[in-house]
Amino acid sequence: MLAIDEKTITDAAVEQMSATRDPRLKEVMACLVKHLHAFAREIDLTPEEWIQGIKFLTAVGQTCTPYRQEFILLSDTLGMSSLINSLHDRRATEKGTKTSLLGPFYRQDSPPRKLGESILSNPRGPQICIYGRVVDSTGKGIPNASIEIWQTDDEGVYDLQRNDPSVMDLRGWYHADAEGKYYLRTVRPLGYLIPMDGPVGDMIRAQGRHGFRPAHIHFLIGAPGYRELVTALYLRSDDHIDSDTVFGVTESLVTEITPHDPKSPIPDLASIQFDFQLASARAEDASGRVGADPSKIVKNA
Amino acid sequence: MLAIDEKTITDAAVEQMSATRDPRLKEVMACLVKHLHAFAREIDLTPEEWIQGIKFLTAVGQTCTPYRQEFILLSDTLGMSSLINSLHDRRATEKGTKTSLLGPFYRQDSPPRKLGESILSNPRGPQICIYGRVVDSTGKGIPNASIEIWQTDDEGVYDLQRNDPSVMDLRGWYHADAEGKYYLRTVRPLGYLIPMDGPVGDMIRAQGRHGFRPAHIHFLIGAPGYRELVTALYLRSDDHIDSDTVFGVTESLVTEITPHDPKSPIPDLASIQFDFQLASARAEDASGRVGADPSKIVKNA
Repeated sequence: MLAIDEKTITDAAVEQMSATRDPRLKEVMACLVKHLHAFAREIDLTPEEWIQGIKFLTAVGQTCTPYRQEFILLSDTLGMSSLINSLHDRRATEKGTKTSLLGPFYRQDSPPRKLGESILSNPRGPQICIYGRVVDSTGKGIPNASIEIWQTDDEGVYDLQRNDPSVMDLRGWYHADAEGKYYLRTVRPLGYLIPMDGPVGDMIRAQGRHGFRPAHIHFLIGAPGYRELVTALYLRSDDHIDSDTVFGVTESLVTEITPHDPKSPIPDLASIQFDFQLASARAEDASGRVGADPSKIVKNA
Repeated sequence: MLAIDEKTITDAAVEQMSATRDPRLKEVMACLVKHLHAFAREIDLTPEEWIQGIKFLTAVGQTCTPYRQEFILLSDTLGMSSLINSLHDRRATEKGTKTSLLGPFYRQDSPPRKLGESILSNPRGPQICIYGRVVDSTGKGIPNASIEIWQTDDEGVYDLQRNDPSVMDLRGWYHADAEGKYYLRTVRPLGYLIPMDGPVGDMIRAQGRHGFRPAHIHFLIGAPGYRELVTALYLRSDDHIDSDTVFGVTESLVTEITPHDPKSPIPDLASIQFDFQLASARAEDASGRVGADPSKIVKNA
């Protein structure tokens, strides 16, 4: 029998999990136990602190509903979601646009729209044009690429936050043309506070963080034979562009709104030009939807 | 602005938490983020696997009730609770009996009993005597030390599992005599399965583990000026003595039932002799109750 102490416990735990049938689950759990234990040892965690952690995790779980995923918010605010996205990008064999957080407001069945149409049902606030191309890793246009877009309105509010779930607004599903080109109308989005009324909000306040996300526009882009791209474009002018609470911003996704761009398909509007680059899919490629479908996550849990 | 990638994200997250007011919370969270990220990087965690983890943690949180603490069970089965106990023991400045898991069945207000009395309201099954001394780090008896004891019956069931919460059975609160000696009657306990009907049970099955705890008897021992001791005695004869699902067993807490012990205060019963050793308390000592009060943990969460 092992004398269990702060050194032997890790091997004992990994050994007891060694009969795990799924080889990937076995290595993931062994790695998790090793790192969790290393954390507790390094910080010399006390029983009171451990109880606080148990209370916090319990509260996070009990805050989840079919329309709210507090564990994803925790993952986002600890930088874990952003890290998972970066690891996903690193596994690509060809270069492409960086992944960013899907966030909790993605909805399937976005309304189909024609190129040039607006994603707003009742346009309000400063209108802009977003245009560019969907290209492959060599820069060649991908015909008919699928482009889903969703964002807040000019007050930083999503449709799901302002209306009942039957209303679809501030989102749309476009297809690029035969050369991979796209363009659409939308409103300049506003940044917003993450939900601060739960345990993650308590954590953010205790950490002296502001809790804001800078203004951004979400995209889910795909085409047969290519890795699905979940990303977002960020507005450089936002006060929180350097301190996104969920670490979605990275330099290559930061854009400028150009007041007068003669190349824009809608030259009378201010515009953002951005080309999305998709890497080829490999058989083993998986979805990059970090944060998708909170309702399914809760219901299936 | 940082270009966020799988390397820079950890520094970015720690930097954003650097305004945390409580210095201990600041170092704990920075350490947690560092180790969590190291785990994800080492195992190259995919978005699908991450979603599975989010689903699992959500289910664990939603399985908690005022009478069930699934996050403590998760901590127990990952060896974290045992590790926290070992770290707590290591912080003692004097030697003492090792800490073991408090478990989810501790109750305050155990019925006071006189030395020699039984903890069973209706004795049934093979009765035994437990006796010994509560001593300090030099081996000197601690007069009037408080001894709380609780355990399963001879079928591996606690009072809370068999009866409504108004019934107190299989537990008692004793005080050692002027020389630190104690003795009491009880029944030989039986090992049992941890709760297997929740997400932790799913994990245990996927890992090919049996889910059993070996037979044991819980103790909470204290005296003014000494560190409170939460521990348990384990029966060597149990089939699962080498494979406790929650890693509470350690060599120094394993005991034998002696059929005929002439030194026992109740020589007509089989007996366990065990001396509990308490280290002196320091001002900064905190409770070692890892796993206490699941109802409070849920209610305050």
